[in-house]
Amino acid sequence: MKDLHAVSWLNGKVRLLDQTKLPEELILLEISDYRHIVSSIKNLVVRGAPAIGIAAAFGVVLSVWNADESDRAEFLTRVNTAIDELKGTRPTAKNLFWALEKMRNTLSRNLSRPLRHVKEAMLKEAQAILQDDIDRCRRIGDLGQELLPLRATVLTHCNAGALATGGHGTALGIIRSAIEKGKKIKVFADETRPLLQGARLTTFELLEDDIDVTLITDNTAAFAMKKGLIDIVVVGADRIARNGDVANKVGTYGLSILAKEHKIPFVVAAPLSTFDREIENGDEIPIEERDANEVRFFGSTQAAPEDVPVYNPAFDVTPHNFISAIVTEKGIVRFPNAEKLAALLK
Amino acid sequence: MKDLHAVSWLNGKVRLLDQTKLPEELILLEISDYRHIVSSIKNLVVRGAPAIGIAAAFGVVLSVWNADESDRAEFLTRVNTAIDELKGTRPTAKNLFWALEKMRNTLSRNLSRPLRHVKEAMLKEAQAILQDDIDRCRRIGDLGQELLPLRATVLTHCNAGALATGGHGTALGIIRSAIEKGKKIKVFADETRPLLQGARLTTFELLEDDIDVTLITDNTAAFAMKKGLIDIVVVGADRIARNGDVANKVGTYGLSILAKEHKIPFVVAAPLSTFDREIENGDEIPIEERDANEVRFFGSTQAAPEDVPVYNPAFDVTPHNFISAIVTEKGIVRFPNAEKLAALLK
Repeated sequence: MKDLHAVSWLNGKVRLLDQTKLPEELILLEISDYRHIVSSIKNLVVRGAPAIGIAAAFGVVLSVWNADESDRAEFLTRVNTAIDELKGTRPTAKNLFWALEKMRNTLSRNLSRPLRHVKEAMLKEAQAILQDDIDRCRRIGDLGQELLPLRATVLTHCNAGALATGGHGTALGIIRSAIEKGKKIKVFADETRPLLQGARLTTFELLEDDIDVTLITDNTAAFAMKKGLIDIVVVGADRIARNGDVANKVGTYGLSILAKEHKIPFVVAAPLSTFDREIENGDEIPIEERDANEVRFFGSTQAAPEDVPVYNPAFDVTPHNFISAIVTEKGIVRFPNAEKLAALLK
Repeated sequence: MKDLHAVSWLNGKVRLLDQTKLPEELILLEISDYRHIVSSIKNLVVRGAPAIGIAAAFGVVLSVWNADESDRAEFLTRVNTAIDELKGTRPTAKNLFWALEKMRNTLSRNLSRPLRHVKEAMLKEAQAILQDDIDRCRRIGDLGQELLPLRATVLTHCNAGALATGGHGTALGIIRSAIEKGKKIKVFADETRPLLQGARLTTFELLEDDIDVTLITDNTAAFAMKKGLIDIVVVGADRIARNGDVANKVGTYGLSILAKEHKIPFVVAAPLSTFDREIENGDEIPIEERDANEVRFFGSTQAAPEDVPVYNPAFDVTPHNFISAIVTEKGIVRFPNAEKLAALLK
């Protein structure tokens, strides 16, 4: 994955790797209109909580990149409209709101300066959010790899990899760092219905890096655990409440129950930008419900009767007492709770 | 589902409803060569433990239906070859071996009679296996419906319906019988990857009968339980050991753990033909592993890199201590164990 980035900035344009087309087609989109960033986040061209935040930050930059540098009112209208539209793309991932808040603060701090400098400051901030995320993932990986034995098979769900972040990944960052340290790591990847981020993205990026990966259906996780094939579960997160409850891709909660039943450690990896300090527990996390046709169809293939009612929440919430450890760039919190996390976030 | 049958006999031919094509296409195959029954079982044109047994029984009839009635050696070779090939189609469902054993016994009992009479006796036996299965499902439904409250939402996995049996169904038979008694029953259907029997078959047959059904991904079951949307889980079985351990479609074991965690009853419905009296517990049940491309592809749509290694067991084993009740045509066994099942099977 050295040369593939989910999001990057190139000469006034945002480059997105189209993740809806992987692994069949490797398409790089060059985007100069922030509204295409809005639609790309909605349609999952770019996905993964940290990567969404990064893409949104660059979206804000795009909204004014070619703006008239003499019209301050128009400039502000453009930025505020873009921030509002980007905020409305997806409700669950905290990193989106965190990144947009950082961009708004940068704007405020620089507002008295010439607009050309404001643009530059905003680009610098977006680039810092990107570079920062890569550094944070590296740190998460280096800290978190200590949780993996010298030889281990790790089960992961969805994609919390380089494709979901600035690079390296959170859950997959831990795996990459462990391998860099010489550990013998195998990965089982849940395919992660309905949109198969595990099958399409996690296996793709692990195969690119020559990491030993086996694909399973989500239904197979429990049996694989029972057969002793899994040593540890490591997943990412879309939002973490003050008490350590974790919203992540639907299926994560079930997996945490299976891990508990089989006495397998269940680890969550996420940067601090994923923490929502304003909510006490997971019940307050808004859960996005997505289109029924994500379940009724797969690509162009019909999977169910056209008119069948569907319940399609994109995320679920894993209570903190099902979690063995949360790995952040600032440290590992074992058996997380409100008190321990308050100390970490201080 | 009044007019649709998974398997039927019609003027010297076996009619199969092609379940690989549902729900998009409704295709009835007319089969006169037992080798097409063999391939139809392997390729899941007909699936579901009881329906496989029925189809195999008719397959044995087909193998000699047009045989020369003067050549006894040739007749016997044909039957024995057919039974062997049918036995080799799928390893897990007990009902297949049970039905073939019944056909072999019928052959043995009638062997001294003119071959025309042997043929007729064999057809009569296969037809009895079919009719018997419908009667057993009715009885399972009528007994099992007592486990459902007056208003309930039932979660089911895979398809243990009319399409998996002679008619009425086992798990879905309980639902149908409860509705006939005037109970208000809603159904949540797990889509059941990789082959989506829940999405394609269970929703299809419930919609046909105007039963309230909502489709979910397998990943959504835990979250639906946590939100209080599920009152009871009812599934079928492919093989049941003497101690009550149950092999069923992969994902069932995980579902039983989720049900236990949420204190939701977990019910298994199966005819006595599903019980394997020769094995003590679930560890002895052979688990079929199927082709990797079932997971890598969905229909013609690629879901994963072509060369990614896959682990694809078609079934898993739910230990008896995760099961609230097993419903058979002979009675309900609550909290099944070896002693209680020995009494039932006596």
